[in-house]
Amino acid sequence: MPYSKLTESHLNELRGLVGEHCMLLGPQITEDYQRDELAEELFCPEAVVIPESTEQVSQLLQWASTHGVPVTTRGSGTGLCGGSVAVVGGIVLSTARLNKILEVDEQNLMAVVQPGVLLMEFQKHVEDLGLFYPPDPGEKTATLGGNVSTNAGGMRAVKYGVTRDYVIGLEAVLADGTIIETGGKVVKNSSGYSLNHLLVGAEGTLAVITKITLKLLPKPEKQISLLVPFPSLTAAIETVPKILAAKIIPTAIEFLQREVLEAAEKYLGRRFPDSSAPAYLLLTFYGQNVVELEGVYEKTAHVCLEAGAVDVLIANSPDRQETLWQTRGAFLEALKAMSALEEVDVVVPPSAIAEFVQFTKELEKELDVRILSFGHAGDGNLHVYILQDDLTKDEWRRRAHQAMDAMYARARTLRGQVSGEHGIGYAKSPYLQNSLGSIQMQLMRGIKQTFDPKGILNPGKIWRENVN
Amino acid sequence: MPYSKLTESHLNELRGLVGEHCMLLGPQITEDYQRDELAEELFCPEAVVIPESTEQVSQLLQWASTHGVPVTTRGSGTGLCGGSVAVVGGIVLSTARLNKILEVDEQNLMAVVQPGVLLMEFQKHVEDLGLFYPPDPGEKTATLGGNVSTNAGGMRAVKYGVTRDYVIGLEAVLADGTIIETGGKVVKNSSGYSLNHLLVGAEGTLAVITKITLKLLPKPEKQISLLVPFPSLTAAIETVPKILAAKIIPTAIEFLQREVLEAAEKYLGRRFPDSSAPAYLLLTFYGQNVVELEGVYEKTAHVCLEAGAVDVLIANSPDRQETLWQTRGAFLEALKAMSALEEVDVVVPPSAIAEFVQFTKELEKELDVRILSFGHAGDGNLHVYILQDDLTKDEWRRRAHQAMDAMYARARTLRGQVSGEHGIGYAKSPYLQNSLGSIQMQLMRGIKQTFDPKGILNPGKIWRENVN
Repeated sequence: MPYSKLTESHLNELRGLVGEHCMLLGPQITEDYQRDELAEELFCPEAVVIPESTEQVSQLLQWASTHGVPVTTRGSGTGLCGGSVAVVGGIVLSTARLNKILEVDEQNLMAVVQPGVLLMEFQKHVEDLGLFYPPDPGEKTATLGGNVSTNAGGMRAVKYGVTRDYVIGLEAVLADGTIIETGGKVVKNSSGYSLNHLLVGAEGTLAVITKITLKLLPKPEKQISLLVPFPSLTAAIETVPKILAAKIIPTAIEFLQREVLEAAEKYLGRRFPDSSAPAYLLLTFYGQNVVELEGVYEKTAHVCLEAGAVDVLIANSPDRQETLWQTRGAFLEALKAMSALEEVDVVVPPSAIAEFVQFTKELEKELDVRILSFGHAGDGNLHVYILQDDLTKDEWRRRAHQAMDAMYARARTLRGQVSGEHGIGYAKSPYLQNSLGSIQMQLMRGIKQTFDPKGILNPGKIWRENVN
Repeated sequence: MPYSKLTESHLNELRGLVGEHCMLLGPQITEDYQRDELAEELFCPEAVVIPESTEQVSQLLQWASTHGVPVTTRGSGTGLCGGSVAVVGGIVLSTARLNKILEVDEQNLMAVVQPGVLLMEFQKHVEDLGLFYPPDPGEKTATLGGNVSTNAGGMRAVKYGVTRDYVIGLEAVLADGTIIETGGKVVKNSSGYSLNHLLVGAEGTLAVITKITLKLLPKPEKQISLLVPFPSLTAAIETVPKILAAKIIPTAIEFLQREVLEAAEKYLGRRFPDSSAPAYLLLTFYGQNVVELEGVYEKTAHVCLEAGAVDVLIANSPDRQETLWQTRGAFLEALKAMSALEEVDVVVPPSAIAEFVQFTKELEKELDVRILSFGHAGDGNLHVYILQDDLTKDEWRRRAHQAMDAMYARARTLRGQVSGEHGIGYAKSPYLQNSLGSIQMQLMRGIKQTFDPKGILNPGKIWRENVN
């Protein structure tokens, strides 16, 4: 379907709807609005609109629907799959001014927020009240709207689950401008198809989310981390299912390999507390009291040592823990500083991670391209990076795509999925299609058609067929 | 759309597909297959088919699709909204022989089951392995397929969530016989629209679920219950948000009123440990050790006494706890033994329960019909019963429908929903429509159309328009 390009008269109408101060045009549209953190290519929208209310979003979509103008919703632009870039032009709808924490309901342990609230702001706000928002994606400057739209996961998913598990209600604007509310301030709901869960992870292709009701927990009082060196990466990762089989659920289990660790040390300009081993598991435990935690981490240490760990280092002060987790948190930036990257965000059963990482090591040799990985060993979500280093762009892309095809195919045979937490955007859409097959893609297409018959919402994402 | 009636030649084709031993016809179709526990009316299917494999389900649906024959999937028939009865005739597909626990994966804390496995069988099976399936709907003879299709909740939802939160993968057969797999053995997933979450709670109207992958937890080692008498029902219920606001998350918080308690004592033929008070909160706490639990229940006792509780009785032996919870578990049967009932299963924010129960008391007076309630105070899910007692059927129905209209309207203004855990079936469909409004019903209709264009799967549920 051909989309309309914005004319001067269109722009005047838009000014009438939202006011000139809520629009960016021409040179005001900086590079930031033309890409996300994937940053493969720039796509310049014809206008950026920054609405200040649900009503403005509604008016904007009603207008866009009438005129066949595509609308791509964007939070902080921290995505890694191009989900929030305007690949066919049209309007970028920025949620930057829909950024209020509307309510923290301490009686029900719930909060209501606008989509442009930053994850880090919200986490701090509720923690200051003794409450806790468990989802903890690595990118703290992401917006909650973006987190909901990609069903972002993060490190604490082992114990606490992902964003989806905390979204109990949404206000959203449909493509034609109609405002709907799904779910509510309810923690149980069996009232028809879950439109709420359909909008979570839909990457802005079904509706524009304008309000989010989130479930909260009491803030855990105590926290302890373990850094466990292993003689090999395989030995480290193979320990993870043993921990789970010992009926221990840590808050997070990450695996680190020396090569990535060294990159992070260089990037941060400081040393990691231990660098004697080729690989580590980094675990954290949250709880309400020390006694509870002691029992669990002692049991974990025992399992790790039985599985061949060289040592178990305990970090129980906030400072020591922060050093460990800050280093882990810098991995992506550290790799980016070294080389251009192609990223894979597969998720497989935790027991299959060792096999999967081994497979990437074989691919590395076979295709002669550097492949590094780190990730959420406890929940099976791996981040695998294929580095350009000194390859030509074309050659690197060729090898990277071979590697990616092979990895997604292997993930599928392990009953895994294309994306654990980053979403599909435009970058992963061919892989999604291969993974799910045409029947499921058709079902999704039918859903899209139901919500957005003119295809104006974030075209070119999840599928590519609407891209010109 | 008119559906085809089964002819003798149809039945012969069905025999060829699944074998005569997998079919019930004519007088073999006992009353059990003509109703669920709502039991308002009998609907006799033309045939009951009891397939033994996913392939048979696939062949059956392909056949039914070709011939325009409706198929209603049924587990144990323990539903309370008529969700599994064949309101337009056709075939009842019983999952009774798809009843295998296929795998308990201790390394990943996951299990794979067929839909006909009973909840109580599965709970026991995993507990014997030191594992734990948290959802705990009251009806233990329900099937897991039924639990998934209604997104059943239960008492432990306060702490552990509902069935949906544990369903990570499904195998399902579409209306045309195509077999799909959604999700997988993955605890994180951001790979396109969540068809998995769409099938959960869809009451068999979108596909027939043939395999379920469930997340498990380690079995909690310790358990303690508190029975807390209050001077009034309002005082009891108003304490619940205070417990949550004190940052305590019990595993379950139920409220009991004397009139219901007395009915249960009579029904069970034994006395409840305490019957001095007009109302009680019954709480339970699960944990890994006694120290952890002691801290929490002492804090809870303090909050309850501050809020006006008469006493706090601790039950820490398995026997004493069983007595308490068995009595609670008998409430529905006890009320049924007293009178015919109309049931409401609304869910509201926990802080609004006191107001809602007060409202039912006013309705009781205003409409001169006995209204009793009990339920999950901690998660806001109430079960309200309108009793026939000695009213004529017509008069009772009239008053009950007035009461229900008023209650659903009030739930809506409190940001609640029509059903917390029982689903919609045919009995609640008009209320769902009122609650969600035509836009959301149209979206759901579009989804239904995408999955089941001929409308053969469980017609007359969620909507009524397909009923002849």
